[in-house]
Amino acid sequence: MKIDHIAIAVDDLKEAVQTYSTLLQVDDIEYERVESEGVSVAILHLENGRIELMEPIGDSSPIKKFLEKKGPGLHHIALETEGIDSQVSRMTSCGIRFLGEVRPGSAGTRVTFIHPKSLHGVLAELCAHPK
Amino acid sequence: MKIDHIAIAVDDLKEAVQTYSTLLQVDDIEYERVESEGVSVAILHLENGRIELMEPIGDSSPIKKFLEKKGPGLHHIALETEGIDSQVSRMTSCGIRFLGEVRPGSAGTRVTFIHPKSLHGVLAELCAHPK
Repeated sequence: MKIDHIAIAVDDLKEAVQTYSTLLQVDDIEYERVESEGVSVAILHLENGRIELMEPIGDSSPIKKFLEKKGPGLHHIALETEGIDSQVSRMTSCGIRFLGEVRPGSAGTRVTFIHPKSLHGVLAELCAHPK
Repeated sequence: MKIDHIAIAVDDLKEAVQTYSTLLQVDDIEYERVESEGVSVAILHLENGRIELMEPIGDSSPIKKFLEKKGPGLHHIALETEGIDSQVSRMTSCGIRFLGEVRPGSAGTRVTFIHPKSLHGVLAELCAHPK
């Protein structure tokens, strides 16, 4: 299992991209609008993983609620795995709770989320990249 | 710059190690007691980075205060860089605030922390590994 990305909720995507890209000296940046998750995302590619900056889209965005409750900051981590369906089965049999089924994520990935109550307060995405 | 580790504050280190090592199928785990930072740490080595689980030591531990205020969860991210002193100078000239000087961290590293106010609510460690 690998660290795929670290996701950060921000109020102002443009400003956050400016800060992070300057600080981390990253110029490999992708932008994506993920309507299904209610976010507009900037993906900064580091040498061994990615930082995803997420700004909410619309009033029902879970990221909007997160920002209102906690302010900007670390939102979730994502772990890349092969055989995501069998991993979900294995983890479920260990008593882990998931937030929804495995579903399409950004850039052709398949994703699901582990409930923070199952992981000591951490929201973790499991993701599988297309082969 | 690389993602070095993701640090998670937990109430019970033993229990958290059990959960995370089972879920992530990791058996390469190191333990360290970092008195200067007031934490007892378990380091889980993934393929491309590490997850650090941190339990507070003593009543003045900043992690104890974090847990009391926010509960267990994501605490900070760490970014590995070469030439940490010149990076700190460069970032300072960009207006970034640091929490303390560059100082010895665990396992021979040199570390400092970027103030969350300078990084959209994210506490980020900069670290350099010994050569």
